[in-house]
Amino acid sequence: MKIQSQIKINQYRSQSGFIRKYQQLIKNEVLPYQYNVLNDNADGAEKSHVIQNFINAANVLKGKDKGDGFYGMVFQDSDAAKWIEAAAYSLSRFPDKELEERVDGLIEIIASAQDEGGYLNTGFTVKDKEKRWSNLLEAHELYCSGHFMEAAAAYYEATGKDRLLKVMLKNAEHIYNVFINGKHEGYPGHPEVELALLRLYGVSGNKHCYELAEHFLNVRGVDRDFYKKEAKARNWTVWGNNGADLMYQQSHAPVREQSDAVGHSVRAVYLYTAMADYASLSNDEKMIEACKRLWRSITQKRMYITGGIGSTGIGEAFTVDYDLPNDTAYAESCASVGLMMFASRMLELEPRGEYADVMENAFYNTVLAGMSLDGKRFFYVNPLEVIPGVSGIASTHIHNRPERAGWYACACCPPNIARAISSFGKYAYGESEAACFCHLFAAGEVSFNNGVLLICETGYPYEFTVKYNIKKGGKTLAIRIPAWSSEFGLFRNGQKAEFTLKDGYAYLNSVQDGDEIILTLDDKAKFVYPSSKIPENTGCAAVMRGPLVYCFEGIDNNEDVLSLRIDDSREISVSEYNERLLGGTAALSVQGARVSGQKSLYCLEKPEEKAVNLTAVPYYAWGNRGLGEMRVWMPLSSK
Amino acid sequence: MKIQSQIKINQYRSQSGFIRKYQQLIKNEVLPYQYNVLNDNADGAEKSHVIQNFINAANVLKGKDKGDGFYGMVFQDSDAAKWIEAAAYSLSRFPDKELEERVDGLIEIIASAQDEGGYLNTGFTVKDKEKRWSNLLEAHELYCSGHFMEAAAAYYEATGKDRLLKVMLKNAEHIYNVFINGKHEGYPGHPEVELALLRLYGVSGNKHCYELAEHFLNVRGVDRDFYKKEAKARNWTVWGNNGADLMYQQSHAPVREQSDAVGHSVRAVYLYTAMADYASLSNDEKMIEACKRLWRSITQKRMYITGGIGSTGIGEAFTVDYDLPNDTAYAESCASVGLMMFASRMLELEPRGEYADVMENAFYNTVLAGMSLDGKRFFYVNPLEVIPGVSGIASTHIHNRPERAGWYACACCPPNIARAISSFGKYAYGESEAACFCHLFAAGEVSFNNGVLLICETGYPYEFTVKYNIKKGGKTLAIRIPAWSSEFGLFRNGQKAEFTLKDGYAYLNSVQDGDEIILTLDDKAKFVYPSSKIPENTGCAAVMRGPLVYCFEGIDNNEDVLSLRIDDSREISVSEYNERLLGGTAALSVQGARVSGQKSLYCLEKPEEKAVNLTAVPYYAWGNRGLGEMRVWMPLSSK
Repeated sequence: MKIQSQIKINQYRSQSGFIRKYQQLIKNEVLPYQYNVLNDNADGAEKSHVIQNFINAANVLKGKDKGDGFYGMVFQDSDAAKWIEAAAYSLSRFPDKELEERVDGLIEIIASAQDEGGYLNTGFTVKDKEKRWSNLLEAHELYCSGHFMEAAAAYYEATGKDRLLKVMLKNAEHIYNVFINGKHEGYPGHPEVELALLRLYGVSGNKHCYELAEHFLNVRGVDRDFYKKEAKARNWTVWGNNGADLMYQQSHAPVREQSDAVGHSVRAVYLYTAMADYASLSNDEKMIEACKRLWRSITQKRMYITGGIGSTGIGEAFTVDYDLPNDTAYAESCASVGLMMFASRMLELEPRGEYADVMENAFYNTVLAGMSLDGKRFFYVNPLEVIPGVSGIASTHIHNRPERAGWYACACCPPNIARAISSFGKYAYGESEAACFCHLFAAGEVSFNNGVLLICETGYPYEFTVKYNIKKGGKTLAIRIPAWSSEFGLFRNGQKAEFTLKDGYAYLNSVQDGDEIILTLDDKAKFVYPSSKIPENTGCAAVMRGPLVYCFEGIDNNEDVLSLRIDDSREISVSEYNERLLGGTAALSVQGARVSGQKSLYCLEKPEEKAVNLTAVPYYAWGNRGLGEMRVWMPLSSK
Repeated sequence: MKIQSQIKINQYRSQSGFIRKYQQLIKNEVLPYQYNVLNDNADGAEKSHVIQNFINAANVLKGKDKGDGFYGMVFQDSDAAKWIEAAAYSLSRFPDKELEERVDGLIEIIASAQDEGGYLNTGFTVKDKEKRWSNLLEAHELYCSGHFMEAAAAYYEATGKDRLLKVMLKNAEHIYNVFINGKHEGYPGHPEVELALLRLYGVSGNKHCYELAEHFLNVRGVDRDFYKKEAKARNWTVWGNNGADLMYQQSHAPVREQSDAVGHSVRAVYLYTAMADYASLSNDEKMIEACKRLWRSITQKRMYITGGIGSTGIGEAFTVDYDLPNDTAYAESCASVGLMMFASRMLELEPRGEYADVMENAFYNTVLAGMSLDGKRFFYVNPLEVIPGVSGIASTHIHNRPERAGWYACACCPPNIARAISSFGKYAYGESEAACFCHLFAAGEVSFNNGVLLICETGYPYEFTVKYNIKKGGKTLAIRIPAWSSEFGLFRNGQKAEFTLKDGYAYLNSVQDGDEIILTLDDKAKFVYPSSKIPENTGCAAVMRGPLVYCFEGIDNNEDVLSLRIDDSREISVSEYNERLLGGTAALSVQGARVSGQKSLYCLEKPEEKAVNLTAVPYYAWGNRGLGEMRVWMPLSSK
């Protein structure tokens, strides 16, 4: 049973501060740019052809000419879905007639590309109709459907319009016919449709959606030879994926028996998100335990300090416990969005602060780092160390681009980042009949379905006071106390508040109309130490303030970051918030040293250490001032 | 012009100490075991079939049945060649009738597999005769010929027997006909034949060998499309190598224009060896400059402290400057043998201590580490950090086996290590008309062609006094002073010797019959610091004593190496030489600390540092006591 649930998108309206600024950026820059990309109107972007694919598919269905056919990846359709989803969330905050018309127009085009039976996928409509459902391993038909289901749910939630919802319910029914009634033995190579079906179930109550999600979860990894048999039965392939590499797509074991987070990290967290959602809906004890094991595997052994996951570009995947290389990390932006989704679903199962801590960490560090401050360039891969001349160049570092790129043919991350930002309120606030949950700190108005109405004011993550003005009360207010804030204050109408602290949440009973609740968090910048089981980070420390991981960039540190050391016996000083630095930030000043004097590759003379002050800036803002070195983990000064 | 040249194999006879012990190991263990492997008589080894391939090829030439055909890699033949070469060197020191008969027998079998025209390669004789010389990129025909040429030269030098020499001169003539007279435009995908032809020229004076080597060097990288055209003209492939990846086989530029050491590291140093040999024979200024540039590229920017080269398993290759990861290193044993060869040829061009320093470093660390102390198990890959559970398991660390294996289907390294050890004298001593060069310190009798006879006595690399008893004098004695020994003493008959120090060599004029020259070197263990341009090693130091790099193994340090730090402000103490430890060694005791107390993957509490003494053992001896952690570079204790 869900202890509490995400609020619906229009229950939260950002009003000021950090989140609103980012949501405005999505509205003003990202959504228009991405719309142009989908329409092949964006300068400098790789060809997309997404909308044309739908037009061509619709023409084929009408018996007309297929025009210039299908172009792009097998998952090209999903770019349109993710754009609609992000636009939907944005519309709920920023009404925009032109944008809404664009969405409606696009939905009509999409609807016209759905065939009578409910099938919807342009690649297998414009051509290769006979190949439908014959390559679950690679062909991403269910993945694309999943993204449209998410978009449909989001647009319905945001606007009340059900055109796309109906299209996708029809599509779900088609899938139900193929896989349940038609007894197709396959299951998705790229998990996504499971979480999407549950989302569709959430807004529509359609039982077939629930059953179908349950079915895909139940059959996954049971017939371990399915993909091999599938490959044998067809004479075509997309990328030549090896169906025997079961871990890659998490089909190595039935999901209730999985323990280690393995394989392609985006696939993994999309799957775990569905598992957690299903677990709370069904009270399936084995599923709940599996979710907890997988959560622990990620967060206790396989996650970067930035909330990034996926240690290698080989398969964009998890590797083994404690293998967390900084320079060759994959840490895909999409994977951290998925980790936020998994965390959010775990919170619905049990409101424990650790889930929200990770969700917040992934958002403020890896997800935001995935996009440039102007919203125009993106990272798919988020390493914790970048060295020009190595990163993006050495064969082992090809995926570690040292600078963000404008758009990729495989455009998964930009819209994923957009939807995470524009739906931030759903991650930040949750509710049950009896209580309101403040998981993350986001300024704005929240109108809970249980009747509570509050306004949150905060300059977080740069100010550490969060004020909740209760406009309408009557229920419990549960406010998360982050693990990084060992000290905090909680006040109610100027007095120390009475509260119960449980699992990282402070519960204030029965808040009343007019109450002013103030939370103060630890505003000190701190050194963070890695487990010594992480080989890559021994002898190093990182620096955080609040949820923000900081990093050292060349531009602030005389270009040469590799020769720097930090002295963790000295306090870190926080600069005044500077509106003009990196879109508004507070840099940190860390005392340390610069080593010099090494005359050769290896030398016997001890390098000189000269005391210097180092400047650190938030990791999410790195790489916005040209090419340079960057490092999160910094060696400690030696004795 | 060669300033000095390697001595011939039978001019040096190891008599005692470290080198003799290793040469005995080759004779007693490695050569018999490898012979059994070649004959498919070795328990637990992967199938070799090498000798049977020759027998089958001979039968085909006689018009008989091909039996069970050809089995193995395209370079399978070369295993026999490398074994003969190592055996030849060993026989010069340890006469052994049975071994010599085995070699002679094997040579007869090989000779019988050479066709009338001189062609020699079992794969393209047993089958696919029409494919000869059609896949220079991959098929290793010239590579195999090269190894037989080296073997022929070695066996002739060691025993005076010229049966194999004649076979290979005939083979060289065949190649001359194909490539020079026949104007075949190709050049070797895997350099090797160039250095071998020059070696053959050295023992035979055959001008065609010299011209052919010169030809292959001259055409390499000139027609940059050759491999692409070749691939187009044939309809078969060995591994599907991409002919357009020019750097992989160093065909990206004419050799005289190459600057950075790139591509497959074994191919690279084999090529550079030939270039250096040719440069000194021809006085080709551009070639000399290219060799020096490539040498600097390796030793100043792309070499591990252990003399290992090749930073990645992707193509077993160099990557970019200063990219020297410890855990995912390739650092192939063969590449360090090749680096010794390159260094030795550079010494012939100009006797500079830096060449001998690197040659010694590669030998005492990576080459020796490639073999277990009992001579029965081998490493191809020599990482500087091994963590069980990650090494050999994570997809990025698959090649980094944490324990040596018995034998591989691709058996390049074991015989390469064997020949390096059994020919150590050729690396250690050189001569010119006027001088005797002591590049490396190796106990034994050396009989120079210029008339000098000396006996060297030393317990090096564990004792740091080297005594030269001059039995017959009359020439200059040039003794290398290693760069790591900033302090040294040089004595002649009990008095401080007069000498000239130039480029790392102490030149003693006209040593006389009966002279006793004593060199004392710095015996202190020292910390070594990396250039801060190496991202992987920042904040760390390593420990060396003499030429030996030390490492920290779990078995000596309570299993947990990752939590250790070293304190470089304290002296390192050297344990007494222990005959029973790791085949005889002196361990080091380094003061430092163990950190503990991290309760989670990342934590805010500073870990506790408790002072401990760390034990270090020579890197060459690591991994001989079961599975455990190992680390060369160790973080320094923090303030």
